[in-house]
Amino acid sequence: MSIITLLTDFGAGSDYVAVMKGVILNIAPDVRLIDLSHGVPRHEIRAGAFLLWSAAPYFPQGTVHIAVVDPGVGTERQGLIIEAGAQLLVGPDNGLLIPAAGRLGLKAVYGIHNGKYMLPHVSATFHGRDIFAPVGAHLACGISPEEIGRKIDEWVGLSFGRGQLKGDRLGGEVIYIDGFGNAITNIPGEMALEVAAWGRELEVNAGAARARVRLLRAYGLAGEGELILLIGSHGNLELAINRGSAAENLGIKLGDELEIRCAKRDEC
Amino acid sequence: MSIITLLTDFGAGSDYVAVMKGVILNIAPDVRLIDLSHGVPRHEIRAGAFLLWSAAPYFPQGTVHIAVVDPGVGTERQGLIIEAGAQLLVGPDNGLLIPAAGRLGLKAVYGIHNGKYMLPHVSATFHGRDIFAPVGAHLACGISPEEIGRKIDEWVGLSFGRGQLKGDRLGGEVIYIDGFGNAITNIPGEMALEVAAWGRELEVNAGAARARVRLLRAYGLAGEGELILLIGSHGNLELAINRGSAAENLGIKLGDELEIRCAKRDEC
Amino acid sequence: MSIITLLTDFGAGSDYVAVMKGVILNIAPDVRLIDLSHGVPRHEIRAGAFLLWSAAPYFPQGTVHIAVVDPGVGTERQGLIIEAGAQLLVGPDNGLLIPAAGRLGLKAVYGIHNGKYMLPHVSATFHGRDIFAPVGAHLACGISPEEIGRKIDEWVGLSFGRGQLKGDRLGGEVIYIDGFGNAITNIPGEMALEVAAWGRELEVNAGAARARVRLLRAYGLAGEGELILLIGSHGNLELAINRGSAAENLGIKLGDELEIRCAKRDEC
Repeated sequence: MSIITLLTDFGAGSDYVAVMKGVILNIAPDVRLIDLSHGVPRHEIRAGAFLLWSAAPYFPQGTVHIAVVDPGVGTERQGLIIEAGAQLLVGPDNGLLIPAAGRLGLKAVYGIHNGKYMLPHVSATFHGRDIFAPVGAHLACGISPEEIGRKIDEWVGLSFGRGQLKGDRLGGEVIYIDGFGNAITNIPGEMALEVAAWGRELEVNAGAARARVRLLRAYGLAGEGELILLIGSHGNLELAINRGSAAENLGIKLGDELEIRCAKRDEC
Repeated sequence: MSIITLLTDFGAGSDYVAVMKGVILNIAPDVRLIDLSHGVPRHEIRAGAFLLWSAAPYFPQGTVHIAVVDPGVGTERQGLIIEAGAQLLVGPDNGLLIPAAGRLGLKAVYGIHNGKYMLPHVSATFHGRDIFAPVGAHLACGISPEEIGRKIDEWVGLSFGRGQLKGDRLGGEVIYIDGFGNAITNIPGEMALEVAAWGRELEVNAGAARARVRLLRAYGLAGEGELILLIGSHGNLELAINRGSAAENLGIKLGDELEIRCAKRDEC
Repeated sequence: MSIITLLTDFGAGSDYVAVMKGVILNIAPDVRLIDLSHGVPRHEIRAGAFLLWSAAPYFPQGTVHIAVVDPGVGTERQGLIIEAGAQLLVGPDNGLLIPAAGRLGLKAVYGIHNGKYMLPHVSATFHGRDIFAPVGAHLACGISPEEIGRKIDEWVGLSFGRGQLKGDRLGGEVIYIDGFGNAITNIPGEMALEVAAWGRELEVNAGAARARVRLLRAYGLAGEGELILLIGSHGNLELAINRGSAAENLGIKLGDELEIRCAKRDEC
């Protein structure tokens, strides 16, 4: 029984998600449906790309991930099927699938051309229902990507960037804010070794805020309400408040830049 | 393996939903459970009826839809089983099931009378758990509606109405607001032909707001932040803002009236 | 096909939930996954314990419940497997599992020690993924708790307390607020008999609010917007507003104390 996951920015209670599931179950009645997330902030392709990048590697071989964060639906943007690792990704050509594909190991990229695998009427507003859901269902049933589209060589890229050490400062960007208000950065966890060498008294600028912060190993090792840096479960440096919300308290938003440095310059 | 969908106004994280699933799985261990939506605005029967109307036709033959938006639970209102198309609908007799039944093709309506198919103790506060979940599970297992209740001839109706052309104005009502803040109206998409004939410079009154609006074919064809009218994926005219929320920006609420007319009267 | 339920405070659209599901499906491809709730208010162990207590008894024999509300992750707190009734509970040793275990019938409590049943790398931030998901999946596949950990005699307790009758007043605590804004108390429904004897003109203090209230049998029997007391579907006394939100209107919060008394002292 193969698995289809769904990632969208439709919101938790959306009928659009239910409609996609109905379409899939008509084609692939035995497939397992897993909601990867429907809470991507609306139209935020980078946030959706991050969630897919985060979760896809944990799924079994043969999983088909259908992802729809698609402000360009109905325009010229094309649809993609990507073979990556032992999984398949289906969605719009706007960068959404690219970081996950890279992490799984990108093998081949196909357009979506064969109308036989779409719904009979394709709207200009909902390709999740009319194209991506039926295509994903057919893939889960064993139809090959070659049957559905042609291999292509160009597509829209997307990168989260990567934090940079600049002298005595470590800079990066907030690429996701989780349900706890933890701000996940694009700074790889291994760079925490650098930061650790500066001692535990650190200072951080994030968005418009500036604050003292300690580098710790776990949320619960901080005082209640204390701002900390830690290597989060995505493997990246994240800014968190023990039993509180760093994003709310500091007013941090998706895409904000962030800089970490030693709080006591003489001692670093 | 038959399918049961669940639609409620219980909210995404509600234990009430989990309890209904537990009850169903005790009776029908192999059934597939699909969440149609648990984000119906609380007590909003019309919004719930719209979601069911929207999604049910996409589901396979034999699907049983259990819908619970039920402010009248514990009063005299009865429970219904409706045969419609090749599907079954279960829920309170308050109009919730009626538009979906009409769209699928209403065949027969039954009350719910046989206590054998309910939980042993029926509360006055939670018929979703005590009546509708077990009845839906028994239906999915092949028990016939006749075994559970008697055919009835009267039930509570519900209609979304239908937009009207009045001279040089097209009037209607906002019957749903989706997760993007798009305001879906009860104006059928084919009436867009009328509007199109007026040219693209239109004016809309919705709730307390009045604004310029263009009729376009897809969200992404508008400028960022531009207010547009388009035929949405429900097939109805909807008011949207490209990469923004029409409902938030204009302060539109469920049930608001809406009127569209030519912006340049001389030219229309 | 055995059942695994998931309860967390990760939020509805969290990739953390999807990651746990991916981990489980790699180990137990045929298990049924049911979301018990991901809407536990963040870090609110008591609220999570209430939801698990509420829903677990409705699930079939053999169900494995994985619950993660875990502000202490990465500290010294241990993980638990509990045999209770014919079900298994897996989660942190912080009280979260205890009320459900008591209600199902606690049989034995085990620590989680055998690294063979965890992910190869155990982080300090996400035991849901690294320990509880794989352990739950192995349990669902038939591995015995003894294989995974040793029986233990001490664990962190948690009790919702129990409302008390003190002369002419009935006192208790708000232990859950549902999606309708109904405030569920720790006062057992049978105590409503006491209250009923006082007549229907009652007065309630809850948090900072004081208000008149009637004891009724169902929400829909009250006037629209009327504050009522009733025996809710959890079996406890709850404070509700017909077609409104008692929690919002009165400003009631989790943990607030509550006192009910006769409104007309002379007549009681």
